[in-house]
Amino acid sequence: MGTADYKAQVERWGIQEITLKGKTEGNPFTDYTIRGVFTGKSETVEADGFYDGDGTYKVRFMPSFEGEYHFRAEGSFAEDAAEGDFTVIPAGKGNHGPVRTVNTYHFAYEDGTPYYSIGTTCYVWALQSDERISQTLETLKKSAFNKIRFCIFPKHYAYNLGEPRSYPYEGTPMDSSVLNTENFFAYTGKTEGNSWDFYRFNPAHFRHLEYCIGELEQMGIEADLIVMHPYDRWGFSQMQADQDDLYWKYVIARFAAFRNVWWSLANEYDLMAAKKITDWERIAGIICEKDPYQHPRSIHNCMAMYDHTRPWITHCSIQRQDLYKTTELVNEYRMRYHKPVVMDEIAYEGDIQYGWGNISGEELVRRFWEATCRGGYAGHGETYMSPDDVLWWSHGGVLHGESHKRLGFLHQIMCETPGIGLRPYEKCSFDETVAVPEDVMMSFAPVKDYYLYYYSFMRPRFREFYFDDTTKFRVRVLDTWNMTIEDRGICSGRFKIDLPGRAYMAIQLRKAE
Amino acid sequence: MGTADYKAQVERWGIQEITLKGKTEGNPFTDYTIRGVFTGKSETVEADGFYDGDGTYKVRFMPSFEGEYHFRAEGSFAEDAAEGDFTVIPAGKGNHGPVRTVNTYHFAYEDGTPYYSIGTTCYVWALQSDERISQTLETLKKSAFNKIRFCIFPKHYAYNLGEPRSYPYEGTPMDSSVLNTENFFAYTGKTEGNSWDFYRFNPAHFRHLEYCIGELEQMGIEADLIVMHPYDRWGFSQMQADQDDLYWKYVIARFAAFRNVWWSLANEYDLMAAKKITDWERIAGIICEKDPYQHPRSIHNCMAMYDHTRPWITHCSIQRQDLYKTTELVNEYRMRYHKPVVMDEIAYEGDIQYGWGNISGEELVRRFWEATCRGGYAGHGETYMSPDDVLWWSHGGVLHGESHKRLGFLHQIMCETPGIGLRPYEKCSFDETVAVPEDVMMSFAPVKDYYLYYYSFMRPRFREFYFDDTTKFRVRVLDTWNMTIEDRGICSGRFKIDLPGRAYMAIQLRKAE
Repeated sequence: MGTADYKAQVERWGIQEITLKGKTEGNPFTDYTIRGVFTGKSETVEADGFYDGDGTYKVRFMPSFEGEYHFRAEGSFAEDAAEGDFTVIPAGKGNHGPVRTVNTYHFAYEDGTPYYSIGTTCYVWALQSDERISQTLETLKKSAFNKIRFCIFPKHYAYNLGEPRSYPYEGTPMDSSVLNTENFFAYTGKTEGNSWDFYRFNPAHFRHLEYCIGELEQMGIEADLIVMHPYDRWGFSQMQADQDDLYWKYVIARFAAFRNVWWSLANEYDLMAAKKITDWERIAGIICEKDPYQHPRSIHNCMAMYDHTRPWITHCSIQRQDLYKTTELVNEYRMRYHKPVVMDEIAYEGDIQYGWGNISGEELVRRFWEATCRGGYAGHGETYMSPDDVLWWSHGGVLHGESHKRLGFLHQIMCETPGIGLRPYEKCSFDETVAVPEDVMMSFAPVKDYYLYYYSFMRPRFREFYFDDTTKFRVRVLDTWNMTIEDRGICSGRFKIDLPGRAYMAIQLRKAE
Repeated sequence: MGTADYKAQVERWGIQEITLKGKTEGNPFTDYTIRGVFTGKSETVEADGFYDGDGTYKVRFMPSFEGEYHFRAEGSFAEDAAEGDFTVIPAGKGNHGPVRTVNTYHFAYEDGTPYYSIGTTCYVWALQSDERISQTLETLKKSAFNKIRFCIFPKHYAYNLGEPRSYPYEGTPMDSSVLNTENFFAYTGKTEGNSWDFYRFNPAHFRHLEYCIGELEQMGIEADLIVMHPYDRWGFSQMQADQDDLYWKYVIARFAAFRNVWWSLANEYDLMAAKKITDWERIAGIICEKDPYQHPRSIHNCMAMYDHTRPWITHCSIQRQDLYKTTELVNEYRMRYHKPVVMDEIAYEGDIQYGWGNISGEELVRRFWEATCRGGYAGHGETYMSPDDVLWWSHGGVLHGESHKRLGFLHQIMCETPGIGLRPYEKCSFDETVAVPEDVMMSFAPVKDYYLYYYSFMRPRFREFYFDDTTKFRVRVLDTWNMTIEDRGICSGRFKIDLPGRAYMAIQLRKAE
């Protein structure tokens, strides 16, 4: 038998990592196989390993159950297989397992705790300096965000024309000093001057991303990994199919054991001219085959929506398709796709020249509430111009806006939902957005247990209610912007609730016993 | 020959009124005819007259040309016809004639002066006390409004359950002391207790409305007359076809000679359960036949849009069909109907309980600018709750809001348009609304003479422009809310315009010689 390093104990939904030495001749990234089989009382999991450089091979595993496990690591990477035993102990504090789709339109952690997504986007925060990364993590720690979208590949786009801290492949990039920063689009997708070996990864690049994913995991933040994207001057968006496949297998072998990983096949897939729908479907097949844990999977549009009815897609990841109606379309997307609707891009709070990056904090928070009360989820981002050209949406760092401060309040209200998740209430009037619990059984009751009325930009001085003559409700008036809650006591029959005549108010009714 | 009172001189587009005595036996409103023929060098106009009570009959005429005219008034109302001559002198100051459709999508007065509509709605301002009417006229005088929508019939609706100052028919209304004001809908369309003779008008009611129309005319405000509407507890919305026809003929005979009259067949026609499309088309036929001056004609929807392609419709009068996209749909309506698009109801500034009456001043002004830059027109209204229950939208009175103060600035900018009217510029990007002049000939030029960029709720810190290397533009930055104009000089080639990072900004570019 070969020898392997591994932990004697690992917590449920933690990571067991088997480290082994192996061959270095030729190209270890492509010439050899490595594979682990992990067997406990309730599961047997097979997982591909990967080459981590310097003669080191690794196989990772995320156990879904407590108890005794046995592993066997084998493959052409070494003459002998390695075996061993370890114990899976209960999940630690804050570890609820991976996120799953539940109730058709919602999410919960594997331990059953509802997961109400409050996402943000920082495309290449993980490819910045150590100092900036620490700053970003500090900002995230103080925030309400429980999901962050970011890239594995570096990004070439306005406000982000520098070089990343490292590259995913062996080789050298084009000389970026020739860039005309006034017209970065001219370099998008141009690959001249780059010299990469797309069959030899740079393990340090991936190890660093693992550090970042691990830090997020510790904070309970889902890592919504954008594995491919079109904002590219290095050629990573134009690799051949076999190179893409190799990349995806490497990414899955390295990252899948992190419980907080989500797979976003691409950002703005429809801008990737070199890819066809058949490419995305082939890649989806690889993920479904190679990810033993079936992490959430989606693909994000620019203009043209992907067909989110495809069975491999676990949830919709949607960029707004209209300047004026954004999360107001959640109802339609729910009907069309019958999956959780995550509107990750609904324009960002900021003041840059682009319309997708210069809405107010008020408007962004309003869009979050509309998404929520329609049974979907929204995504944040911030694009304020800054003297140092550091914009949260691209680099992370610190937040300058107003919207992020209000999302914890929204999350608190979401967590008050009976059952898991809200759905839009079809019996509401034209001038309000009303949510009731998603729970199907409750919906048969003539009067729901819970109503959340949201008035958006409207500013009623009062609203009147009538459900029946007897049901008693605990009434609370929520100011979603100022984050105040006013208890208005128990009401029944016909009742009138006074409001302050300001925008962004909500009324919460909960059946009182 | 019979004798008649009339003026020896009348100004072009003024009113010549022939007053005659006639029969009083039976029902003079239905039993006799009266008709005038007015002949000048360039026109012969035939117009029905009407019975004004107390044995008095009248025929009115609006001359479209200067010079000598002859008239002859005849009919069964009297034994003898009456004839006479009068002179039409040039139009006085501020008299530009009636409003006509021009450039397919726009309006001009008959003398060629562009008419850029800035409308408001005060449904029954004309049926209030003398004191309130004076107050409303005073408010209008100080405002930028050049069109007002209001009703001939009294209105039964929330915040407006009282009795009007007079009724259009002889008879008595139901006892309104029995009304349950909490549930006024229960009385809508119920006619019990009313007792009217739908064949005998109350001339005083109409004379008073003529006073109001005349006052508006003096201020250069178009009277967009809502001739029928569904908010009714008196039965006026449920008359028989012959009664409707009699009413319309009476209205036309009395009001058509006022140059500022527009015909709105109905407000929210689709809520008038007793009427069918064939009724509206029959009524439209009466107007086309009986109105010698072809005043603007339209019909206003609640939910279901009327088919505005019908040839008798001179312009679209539209209530918003979506809570979030209102005047943003002007582009679509222009394409669909090929007529001026007037979005008369796009929610009102205020704070009442209904979503159509509680948006902010900022949002209403934004909707006006969107309408304008898309080549359409918007309508104002105000519904702030008030201790005396006087709401501008229903009663007139004084304005409490913020939007009306900004509409004069918009009108000023509209008046700077080369030619008549703006159209949406198809070459704009997703995140701006851009207008260019409607003028068809100009549109063949590679670079337009004039561009109006509007950024709506977006808050760019700058925008960049490039048309060609040589064309010079005079650049002005408009703050549409604070009503400031900053001249940024002459720019050409690639240029960047800094902005303050606030919402509601616009950039105006005018080709410099």
